[in-house]
Amino acid sequence: MFSRSHFRCSLLLCAAAALSAQTVPPQSVVEAARQYTTAHQTELTENFARFLAIPNVAADPAGLKRNADLLVDLLKARGVESRLLTIPDAPAVVYGQITTPGAQHTIVFYAHYDGQPVTPSEWEIPPFSPTVRSVNGEPRIFARSAGDDKAAIFAQLTALDALRAAKIPLRANIRFVWEGEEEAGSPHLEQILNANRDLVHGDVWLVCDGPVDQSGKQTVVFGARGDAHLEITVYGPHHGLHSGHYGNWTPNPAMMLAQLLAGMKDETGHVLIPHFYDGIASLSPLEREALARAPVNDSMLMNSFWLGHTEGSGKHLLELINQPSLNINGFASGQIGAHAANVIPPTATADLDLRLVVGIDWREQQERVVNYIRSRGYFIVDTEPTQEILTSHAMVAKVARDQASYNAVRTPMDLPIAQEVIHAVESARGTAVLLPTMGGSVPLGAMERAAETRTITVPIANYDDNQHAPNENLRLQNLWDGVETMAALLTMQ
Amino acid sequence: MFSRSHFRCSLLLCAAAALSAQTVPPQSVVEAARQYTTAHQTELTENFARFLAIPNVAADPAGLKRNADLLVDLLKARGVESRLLTIPDAPAVVYGQITTPGAQHTIVFYAHYDGQPVTPSEWEIPPFSPTVRSVNGEPRIFARSAGDDKAAIFAQLTALDALRAAKIPLRANIRFVWEGEEEAGSPHLEQILNANRDLVHGDVWLVCDGPVDQSGKQTVVFGARGDAHLEITVYGPHHGLHSGHYGNWTPNPAMMLAQLLAGMKDETGHVLIPHFYDGIASLSPLEREALARAPVNDSMLMNSFWLGHTEGSGKHLLELINQPSLNINGFASGQIGAHAANVIPPTATADLDLRLVVGIDWREQQERVVNYIRSRGYFIVDTEPTQEILTSHAMVAKVARDQASYNAVRTPMDLPIAQEVIHAVESARGTAVLLPTMGGSVPLGAMERAAETRTITVPIANYDDNQHAPNENLRLQNLWDGVETMAALLTMQ
Repeated sequence: MFSRSHFRCSLLLCAAAALSAQTVPPQSVVEAARQYTTAHQTELTENFARFLAIPNVAADPAGLKRNADLLVDLLKARGVESRLLTIPDAPAVVYGQITTPGAQHTIVFYAHYDGQPVTPSEWEIPPFSPTVRSVNGEPRIFARSAGDDKAAIFAQLTALDALRAAKIPLRANIRFVWEGEEEAGSPHLEQILNANRDLVHGDVWLVCDGPVDQSGKQTVVFGARGDAHLEITVYGPHHGLHSGHYGNWTPNPAMMLAQLLAGMKDETGHVLIPHFYDGIASLSPLEREALARAPVNDSMLMNSFWLGHTEGSGKHLLELINQPSLNINGFASGQIGAHAANVIPPTATADLDLRLVVGIDWREQQERVVNYIRSRGYFIVDTEPTQEILTSHAMVAKVARDQASYNAVRTPMDLPIAQEVIHAVESARGTAVLLPTMGGSVPLGAMERAAETRTITVPIANYDDNQHAPNENLRLQNLWDGVETMAALLTMQ
Repeated sequence: MFSRSHFRCSLLLCAAAALSAQTVPPQSVVEAARQYTTAHQTELTENFARFLAIPNVAADPAGLKRNADLLVDLLKARGVESRLLTIPDAPAVVYGQITTPGAQHTIVFYAHYDGQPVTPSEWEIPPFSPTVRSVNGEPRIFARSAGDDKAAIFAQLTALDALRAAKIPLRANIRFVWEGEEEAGSPHLEQILNANRDLVHGDVWLVCDGPVDQSGKQTVVFGARGDAHLEITVYGPHHGLHSGHYGNWTPNPAMMLAQLLAGMKDETGHVLIPHFYDGIASLSPLEREALARAPVNDSMLMNSFWLGHTEGSGKHLLELINQPSLNINGFASGQIGAHAANVIPPTATADLDLRLVVGIDWREQQERVVNYIRSRGYFIVDTEPTQEILTSHAMVAKVARDQASYNAVRTPMDLPIAQEVIHAVESARGTAVLLPTMGGSVPLGAMERAAETRTITVPIANYDDNQHAPNENLRLQNLWDGVETMAALLTMQ
């Protein structure tokens, strides 16, 4: 656990800070944050490592609970009113509130403390043994959720400490909503928020998640793609068959699934599923302008990712992010390498990830994919097919439609609150990259409905943080910069 | 280990049997075998289970050695001259010989004691915990290699015991050659045989491997398909990337591989790789006639395997086995199910199994596939590609060509030795199914070259033995029938 001596100190400062409500120039806020992180770098890195060391995957509810309990303690140690918002059988939301006397506005800081599933054998450093290593001469900390999304939570806590250490007062009411189920698609977030509408309502939700632009510049994003998943299983023989005795007579499910998936995209990456692009809401002139001003990092990224080509017929990454996508997250059939056997495998399964943009509903997009599978001759089931079903249809596909899916959301950039957030961020980090949509997904719609608010995303992680992949990491400078950004946002009026 | 009391008894009988060289009617041989297995069924089942309990996968050389040592002991206990034929870094061949005074011919019994790799989590019964269970009212024993191919070895040993118990003499010289590397493609068999040419030469090699016809009738097969393997890996990003931030711009290797593989076959299963069917040697009239007489089990098999369609545009399984095939043994990219993460995986890998018929060379068939991959725009490498290679070619495929591959072989059915083997088998089991080619592969060519012989395959396992797959099993009646078949072959002149 974290050292408590520091938190006791913060607690004393808290009361002092709350008393003084004068306006502090933005530059002083940023300066205070920088002085604080510079002075406490070693201690902060150690504390962040302790937070990262607590496993936070969906398969480990006890680990998620430990994270949530720690966060309540950390908020309380800072004098923030804090508790868990719970419903049965779901990770709790960690809630915190600071009521600022005389405040006109309420700003809600959203982040999530859960991480993507891990396959430890694929990691060079075990995912919950945080380790600092130098990458390109700069220190990074490696662990699951280092970038996505514990960094944001830790930056917010640290920004609070920095402001209090410098006796800089808050001006708005502040709420913290830290979710524990984002990587599972936030299936219970809306329900939890609905049960606590008074607590979570705010003038704006600042969604602190995702990476900054690949150029390294601080980024403000006004929307996120929605996300829907499907898992498709196709069937060969009832059990693995000898590939010599039965091959080229018994259908091979890996080949069937390859043929099915291959038909979903052309070789430029354009999705061929009928109606896949129907309904896309067009960008406003302000959004198109922001996109045109955003850095084009494609060549740098191709080199960084060792890519020899890209999809999209020459369109830039940022343009393509404003389109829906279809991605294979995993494909498994039989065994490869040392475990490969001469069999016709009984099944082949692929997990598909569909990213959505405003104007496309997740249920409809799933349905378009299912209709396509059906059009390729498959009989569709949603549970394990019986012998009768398998023998009475030429081809059978089981399709599991993940219900923890959600739509895309976009906040207009010309709203006053949008302009205020841009101003605060730019006061801390200079001219920011403004993007209509982030490529990743956050359940912004659920937040907006339940909290009757607008969402604006302010990420802090480096783009190359191996988010969702083995060897996830955070460039520590992004954490220090993030504390400055969070300090500026915490002191908004 | 096996009970030794029984073997001591056999040893005494051996000397007696060798002294008496009178001709025994075939019916008496079969009768003797049946009486023996009926009287000793429990003990034989237990002894077979002890043999199956010894792990025999390539990844466990110590386990393979334990199998080989046991077999030498078992042969010696029966008075058979026996030893291991070894070369460095390869599983030994177990060799045994019985010199029969006055014999004109030498008959070599080939089988293999190694098994296909296992993934224990996929097995209902652990692969090396042999267990008897009833299937359709008949007992079967479940374990890796129950059918493929320890059953054949155990049937030969038991047939020796039965003949000796009944004091029935052998008439030919007998050799046993039991390999330990067949499931790895027999990469060292020819080398070992070449180093021991005098020992392994015979008038015929009886290859006791594979399943009998699906009708359950005893089968004699005059050839086997060759087998060649390729492992193909294609590349996406250097490391897993967030599918939201980079999806539909970063190429997805699972989709690339799906598209590559999908183009290799049409939807009827016909292989589209140029020249794939070039060079096939046509069947002789006798072979075509045998094929026409063979049972057509396709409907029964479709039902048994829960299949809703088959490949091959309506051709029967036995016809298709006389064609080369292309089968995906495994396909892996990213993760599925509970481990699925929202990533673009860095690689996708498929293991391909190419079955060959007479007239097609394994190196050429591998090359045809590689040429096809190249024609689809891939730069081909055979080691892990560097950043420079990946970024300077649009698409890169690593292709590992398994060198433990071999060609198909077919022995003409009208040779005198072929007719003698048919006669012996039919004396034991009635009219046999005669097939020009088995679907599975055995390195018959290596045997024929090194032993200067012809090969004829006499399988004994049930077709539905889950050979090469989880839950491999042997119908025990096939073992008892197999003992009769082996007794008849052991007493050939």
